[in-house]
Amino acid sequence: MITFIFEFIGTALLILIGNGIVANLVLKGTKGSDSGWTGISLAWGIAVFIGVFVSADTSGAHLNPAVTISLAVAGKFSWSLAPGYILAQILGAMMGNFLVWLNYKKQYEATEDTSAILATFSTSPAIRSPFWNMVTEIIGAFALVFGVFYIAGGTMGDSPVSLGSLDALPVALLVMGIGFGLGGPTGYAINPARDFGPRLLHSILPIKNKGKSDWGYAWVPIVGPIIGGVLASLLFMLIETLQ
Amino acid sequence: MITFIFEFIGTALLILIGNGIVANLVLKGTKGSDSGWTGISLAWGIAVFIGVFVSADTSGAHLNPAVTISLAVAGKFSWSLAPGYILAQILGAMMGNFLVWLNYKKQYEATEDTSAILATFSTSPAIRSPFWNMVTEIIGAFALVFGVFYIAGGTMGDSPVSLGSLDALPVALLVMGIGFGLGGPTGYAINPARDFGPRLLHSILPIKNKGKSDWGYAWVPIVGPIIGGVLASLLFMLIETLQ
Amino acid sequence: MITFIFEFIGTALLILIGNGIVANLVLKGTKGSDSGWTGISLAWGIAVFIGVFVSADTSGAHLNPAVTISLAVAGKFSWSLAPGYILAQILGAMMGNFLVWLNYKKQYEATEDTSAILATFSTSPAIRSPFWNMVTEIIGAFALVFGVFYIAGGTMGDSPVSLGSLDALPVALLVMGIGFGLGGPTGYAINPARDFGPRLLHSILPIKNKGKSDWGYAWVPIVGPIIGGVLASLLFMLIETLQ
Amino acid sequence: MITFIFEFIGTALLILIGNGIVANLVLKGTKGSDSGWTGISLAWGIAVFIGVFVSADTSGAHLNPAVTISLAVAGKFSWSLAPGYILAQILGAMMGNFLVWLNYKKQYEATEDTSAILATFSTSPAIRSPFWNMVTEIIGAFALVFGVFYIAGGTMGDSPVSLGSLDALPVALLVMGIGFGLGGPTGYAINPARDFGPRLLHSILPIKNKGKSDWGYAWVPIVGPIIGGVLASLLFMLIETLQ
Repeated sequence: MITFIFEFIGTALLILIGNGIVANLVLKGTKGSDSGWTGISLAWGIAVFIGVFVSADTSGAHLNPAVTISLAVAGKFSWSLAPGYILAQILGAMMGNFLVWLNYKKQYEATEDTSAILATFSTSPAIRSPFWNMVTEIIGAFALVFGVFYIAGGTMGDSPVSLGSLDALPVALLVMGIGFGLGGPTGYAINPARDFGPRLLHSILPIKNKGKSDWGYAWVPIVGPIIGGVLASLLFMLIETLQ
Repeated sequence: MITFIFEFIGTALLILIGNGIVANLVLKGTKGSDSGWTGISLAWGIAVFIGVFVSADTSGAHLNPAVTISLAVAGKFSWSLAPGYILAQILGAMMGNFLVWLNYKKQYEATEDTSAILATFSTSPAIRSPFWNMVTEIIGAFALVFGVFYIAGGTMGDSPVSLGSLDALPVALLVMGIGFGLGGPTGYAINPARDFGPRLLHSILPIKNKGKSDWGYAWVPIVGPIIGGVLASLLFMLIETLQ
Repeated sequence: MITFIFEFIGTALLILIGNGIVANLVLKGTKGSDSGWTGISLAWGIAVFIGVFVSADTSGAHLNPAVTISLAVAGKFSWSLAPGYILAQILGAMMGNFLVWLNYKKQYEATEDTSAILATFSTSPAIRSPFWNMVTEIIGAFALVFGVFYIAGGTMGDSPVSLGSLDALPVALLVMGIGFGLGGPTGYAINPARDFGPRLLHSILPIKNKGKSDWGYAWVPIVGPIIGGVLASLLFMLIETLQ
Repeated sequence: MITFIFEFIGTALLILIGNGIVANLVLKGTKGSDSGWTGISLAWGIAVFIGVFVSADTSGAHLNPAVTISLAVAGKFSWSLAPGYILAQILGAMMGNFLVWLNYKKQYEATEDTSAILATFSTSPAIRSPFWNMVTEIIGAFALVFGVFYIAGGTMGDSPVSLGSLDALPVALLVMGIGFGLGGPTGYAINPARDFGPRLLHSILPIKNKGKSDWGYAWVPIVGPIIGGVLASLLFMLIETLQ
C-alpha cells in the first residue's frame, strides 16, 4: 500500500514541477515567460530528480508506466504489482496537474490561447504525423529506459528492482538530455501517465477558454513510450546474455 | 548562540546571492540584464546551496521560518529555539539584502523604476489576487518543506533534526524546481524571512527613486509559506503512521 | 567483444543526445529552436554524461578516437585494442545520428537550409580557415584529454585504464566548459568519430534538401583532436616524471 | 616545485575556459554569441571546477592570490610559499588567455570593437566608479573566500590547508552564484591574477584593433579582492573563537 502511495506522490511531484514550468512558459501573466526550451529541459530533469528522490527508497520511483512495464518484461518487477503502480502513476499525475492549475489559477483565467492551456496538461506534436510522432516517442522512451537499466544497475540482480535516491541525479540528467536532444518534435511525453492523466484532467476541469483535449493524439504518447521501453528491455536482456 | 549566528550567516548568504540575481536582472546598468527566469531559478537554487552548505553542520540550515515552524510542528525541532532561529533568519535576510544594495549601489542610483527597486528586496505578484497568490505560496512552500523532510530523512529520527552539508545539493535542486515550476505567479517567496526582512530594510534604506514598500501584500508571503509548510508537516506525519 | 559493443552503445548515446540538440536548435518545426548556445553546451555535456555512465564500467568509455589514441600513447591502453575501439566509435556515432534522423524525420523534411541539415551531422567552422580551425580543435581536445587524465587519475596506475561511471559527472562538466569556452569557432568536434561517422552517414542518407557533405573540411576535426590529445598525453607524461 | 606547476596549470585552465566564454559571447564570428549572462555565470563556475579538479590534490587549488593571501592571514598557509603561488597564478592566467587568443584567432581579427577585445582579457565596470566598483569586488571576493573556508572545512585543522578535488563542485557552484548574484556591476574579477595577468598580456599581444589596456582601472580588481578575502579570513577567525 505504502509503495502505491509513494508512486502517487512521486508522480504528483514530477508533474507539479514539470507541467508547472510549461505553465510558467506559455500562460499569460507569469514571470517566467522567457524560460525557453533550456528552462523546459532543465526543469523537467529537476522534476524527475525531486520525484525520484522522494519516492525511490519506498516505491523504487518508476513514476512511469513505460518503466514499470519494461522492468516487468525484463523480469525485474512483479507483473502483479504493475496495475497498482500504473494506476497510482496516473492518479498522481492528475493530482500534480491539479495543483499546477491551482498554482496558476489567475494565469489560466488570463490566457485565451486554448492550445497553450492544453500544453500545460498534455503533449502535442510540433508537426502532426502520428507515425513519426510515435517514432520520436519510441526513441525517447528507449533512451530513458535503457539508461535507467544501467543507472539502477547496482541493484539489478534483485527482483523487484528499483531506483534508489542516489540514482536521482543520473536519471535527472538523462531526462534533461532527452529533453534537449529528442524532445523537439513531440514535447517528449516518454511516459503514458504523464500525458494521459493530465489529458483526462483537462477534459474534466472547468477552465475558462478551454479547447478540445485532442484525444485523437492521446494514443501516441501511450503506445510510443511503451514500445520504446520494451525495446530497451529486450536490448538490455540481449546484452546481458553476451556478458 | 553559535547556531543563531549560523542561521544569520546562512540566510544572509542566501539573500545576498538570491536577491543579487534579481538586482542583476532588473536594475539599470548591470551586465546580467539578459539572465531571464532561467538565471533566476538557477541562481536562487545555488543561493540555497551556498547558505545551506555553510550553515548546515552548525545550525541545521533552516534559513526559513516556514521550515523552522514545520519542523517544530512535526516534533523534530524544539519550539523553544524557534523564536531565536526566526529572528536570526530575518536579521540575516536584512544583512544579505543590505550587501546587495552596496554591491549594486551605482545601479540603484541609475534605476528610476520603483517597482524594479522593490523587486530586489521583496516579492510581488504578477497578477494581484491575495487569495490565489497565497494559494501559490502555499503550494510552493508545501513542495519545499515536504521535500526537505525526505532529503533530511537520514537524520529524521533525531530531534532536533537538521540538514547536513551533503543535503545542500538536493535542496538546491528542489528550490530550482520550485522556481522554474511554481514561481511564475508570485516570484516564490516560500520563506517569510526572505520577504519580510528585505521589505523592512526597503522601508528604512535611503534609496533614490524609492517607492512604497507595498506592506498591503506583505502578509501573503508570510502566511502562505507557513500554511504550506505546516500542511507538509501534517502529511509527512500522516504518512509516517502508515509505514 | 562486449567492450566494443559498449563503445558502440556509449558513442551512439552521445551522438543521439548531442546531435539531437543541434537538430532541435537548427531544424524547422521543432519546439527547441530557442535553446541557444547555452542549450548546446549543457546538452552535449549531458550527452557525454549519459554515454560515459552507460559504458564506463564495461569499456572504459573512451567514445572518442582522440582519447583512445592518447591513452595508448601514454601507455595506459593497449594499441592492439585501439582499431576495434575506433571502429566501434565511428559505427556508434553513425547509429546515434541515424536515430537523430528518425527522431526528427518530419523536421528534416520541413527544412530547406542545407547547411542546417549538415550541422545536425558534422561540424563546420564559423569562419573558415583550415589552419586556425585546426588550432581550435587542438586546444579543445587538449583540454578534454588533459582533463580526462586527471579525472580518471584514481585508476591511472592500471593498464588498460578507463573512466568509471563515477567519472561521468566531472567529464560532463569538462565538456560543458569546452563547449562554452572553446566551441565558438568550430563547433568543437574534439572527437574524430563524432565528426567523421555522421559526415559519412550524411553522404549516404536520402535526405530531402541535402547539400554537400563538405569533405574538404573533414580532415580538420580528425587531425586536430588527435594532435591535441597526443599533446595532452605528452604533457601528462612529462609532469609525471617531475613528481 | 610541482605545486607551483599545478597552480600554473589550474589557473591556466580556469582562464582558458572562463575568458573563452567571454570571447565566445563578445567577439564577432563565433557560434556562441547568444550565450548571455547565464552562459557566462555557468561557464565560469565550470571553469573553476576544471581548474580546481586538476590542481587540487597537488597544489590545493588556490588559483587566486586573494585566496592565497587570505589563507595565509588565517594561518592556514605558509607566507613563504605565497609569492611563488601568486607568481604561478599570474603566469598561468597569462598562459590561459594566450590560448584563448589562439583559439579565437580569426574571431579577434574579425572584431573591431576594442572594448569587446579587452573584455576577453580583463574586467571592466558597467558603471565606472572606482570606489563602488571596489566595494563590489570586496563583497564578491568576501563571499568566495568565506565560502571556501567552509567548503575546505574538513581539512581546515591542517596547515597548509587546501581544497581537494571533491571540493571542486561546491566551489564551482559558489562561483556560479557569485557570477549570477554579484557579478553585474564589475564582471566579478574576485581574483587579482585573473585580471592582472590577462591585462598584462593584452598590453603585449599584437592584436589588430587593440585599444588601451585601461590600466587606470587595474588596481580595483587587485585591491578589492584582497580586501574582501582578508575580511572573510578575519570573520572566519572570529567565528572560530566563538565555537
